Amino acid sequence: MSELRNDRFLRALLRQPVDRTPVWMMRQAGRYLPEYRATRAEAGSFLDLCKNAELACEVTLQPLRRYPMDAAILFSDILTVPDALGLGLYFEEGEGPRFRKTVRSEQDLAGLASIRAEDDLGYVMNAVSTIRRALGGSVPLIGFSGSPWTLATYMVEGGSSKDFAHTKRMAYDQPQLMHDLLSLLADAVTDYLAAQVRAGAQALQIFDTWGGALSAAGYREFSLRYMRRIIEGLPREADGREVPVIVFTKGGGQWLEAIADSGADAVGIDWTTDIAAARARVGERVALQGNMDPAMLYASPARIREEVATILEGFGHGDGHVFNLGHGITPGVDPDHVTAFVDAVQEFSPQYHRPA
Amino acid sequence: MSELRNDRFLRALLRQPVDRTPVWMMRQAGRYLPEYRATRAEAGSFLDLCKNAELACEVTLQPLRRYPMDAAILFSDILTVPDALGLGLYFEEGEGPRFRKTVRSEQDLAGLASIRAEDDLGYVMNAVSTIRRALGGSVPLIGFSGSPWTLATYMVEGGSSKDFAHTKRMAYDQPQLMHDLLSLLADAVTDYLAAQVRAGAQALQIFDTWGGALSAAGYREFSLRYMRRIIEGLPREADGREVPVIVFTKGGGQWLEAIADSGADAVGIDWTTDIAAARARVGERVALQGNMDPAMLYASPARIREEVATILEGFGHGDGHVFNLGHGITPGVDPDHVTAFVDAVQEFSPQYHRPA
Repeated sequence: MSELRNDRFLRALLRQPVDRTPVWMMRQAGRYLPEYRATRAEAGSFLDLCKNAELACEVTLQPLRRYPMDAAILFSDILTVPDALGLGLYFEEGEGPRFRKTVRSEQDLAGLASIRAEDDLGYVMNAVSTIRRALGGSVPLIGFSGSPWTLATYMVEGGSSKDFAHTKRMAYDQPQLMHDLLSLLADAVTDYLAAQVRAGAQALQIFDTWGGALSAAGYREFSLRYMRRIIEGLPREADGREVPVIVFTKGGGQWLEAIADSGADAVGIDWTTDIAAARARVGERVALQGNMDPAMLYASPARIREEVATILEGFGHGDGHVFNLGHGITPGVDPDHVTAFVDAVQEFSPQYHRPA
Repeated sequence: MSELRNDRFLRALLRQPVDRTPVWMMRQAGRYLPEYRATRAEAGSFLDLCKNAELACEVTLQPLRRYPMDAAILFSDILTVPDALGLGLYFEEGEGPRFRKTVRSEQDLAGLASIRAEDDLGYVMNAVSTIRRALGGSVPLIGFSGSPWTLATYMVEGGSSKDFAHTKRMAYDQPQLMHDLLSLLADAVTDYLAAQVRAGAQALQIFDTWGGALSAAGYREFSLRYMRRIIEGLPREADGREVPVIVFTKGGGQWLEAIADSGADAVGIDWTTDIAAARARVGERVALQGNMDPAMLYASPARIREEVATILEGFGHGDGHVFNLGHGITPGVDPDHVTAFVDAVQEFSPQYHRPA
């Protein structure tokens, strides 16, 4: 493996000194880029793109050719694990993800396939190693998975949901069944993320997209607990370097202290949380990743620059900040606005860090 | 006007002693009730139902015939004000609200009608006085409005939205235009709520459904500020009694201290906020309303009772709690589960209050 030439993302996650605040964007390889849309059209469906290592590598690298991002992230979907478990993932245009089967009973649970990520999700590992090779040490590669709770919502509902009626009914009325499902998922995700590290991932992010739909007590019981179990089970080193783990619970701003106790190195925060307040609450224990409102990218470049400056000032002097959006970039954004965003982080952030 | 025979809802909002915790449910007059669906079918469209005082009164009273709720809430829509301003509200089945016109420029703003609620929203005032008369002093009547920010999101987007792209672009790039719109809305909502009080409303709730989509700073600038202005402008007494005001910002759990400073008597909290923590943060300043997860109503009656007990225990001994869901009840709920919910509040709550 090539020597890593830009490690400020990994260093910041471990709260080590950096020359400037590293930056990347959730969903940076995505539909706002015309070159992504072209490759996606070439691949066929979204899933075809995920399963083709060369094309998945191509779209992963596309944003890095345009912007000096400090990290690349594996191009894949959060629902690969439930798909491998036998639920039959498919996408209907404009409808979001769907599963052919759902998990709502003990029989459904018993019917799930037994999987080993290295074999049954080999296409993901192929993509990871292909991308890692193609990066050639330019920036680190982030691997990722959905959180058990987030995966469970899709598996129980059969797709996206507004109120999670079936999932919550299971959690409330059949907590043992829900815990059995979450436990199975925690094991599968641990295996999946560990395999990504062996294939070349240098940092990991757990996307807990729907943890914020739970009550405070429910979050601890059904989401956080299983993310903690995953983190405990992960290899924390590869190639002689630590492999930092980021937990991102969208809507989890009220629970930062608990998330910071999960064993994660870094906590992702969405834009509803004030980053200065977040740092005061947990910044001695974990790094923070975030947190510009993705909708700010619809504003003018001048306004975007102003917002970047405000967030950098909010975090303040010192290390332990990875700049990012508070959620994924949306398809309608002008790619030039991303230039303004990334340039502003590069330009304004060195003053907050001590010279090396 | 008849003497009010059950005032525990009004008393609790003012943190005065009560014999048990009062309870009502957001969207208690709604699609989960077969009698509501029948009246709605008779009325024609949803808007026809809102505009027919007799039928709006009928659906307002329906949940009170089934359940011993401690308050009634005007049956109406949060978008009546933008409709009166000339935007042309309509509903497409399963699609949510839509406007024929949007507000995205100074010209659009200048084109809005000048309204006086008593005349231009006379059908709402008719409904309020009809319902108040029909209640005959059994329980107090809550009037309501959407918050300026929440109304603005629909007016700028032309309907519901996932990411509020147009609204946020306006807020970020043309803050003066957004403030002009919000200012106009704050005046219209103040007039609207004051007219509801004159027509018979005994308490008021401001629904800030989308305040939680803003950043912490954006919430203060674009949402909270205008709710504070409304509260300052409202008549705070009618029939010799105080008219308490509740502010409910869905997703506002991180900002409770700021909301408690808005001048509101009570703060609505959604289910993601721990009610014990909320009381510790702001319970000396305001009453709290909430906060069971509406999805809990999908669970068994036994589980619902358990959750009610947990929330009552979380708030603890003393006054200043109005039991409610953390958001509106959803259409798929079994009406018998609501019985379990309301009965549990009645049964378990007296122990937390001093005997009169």
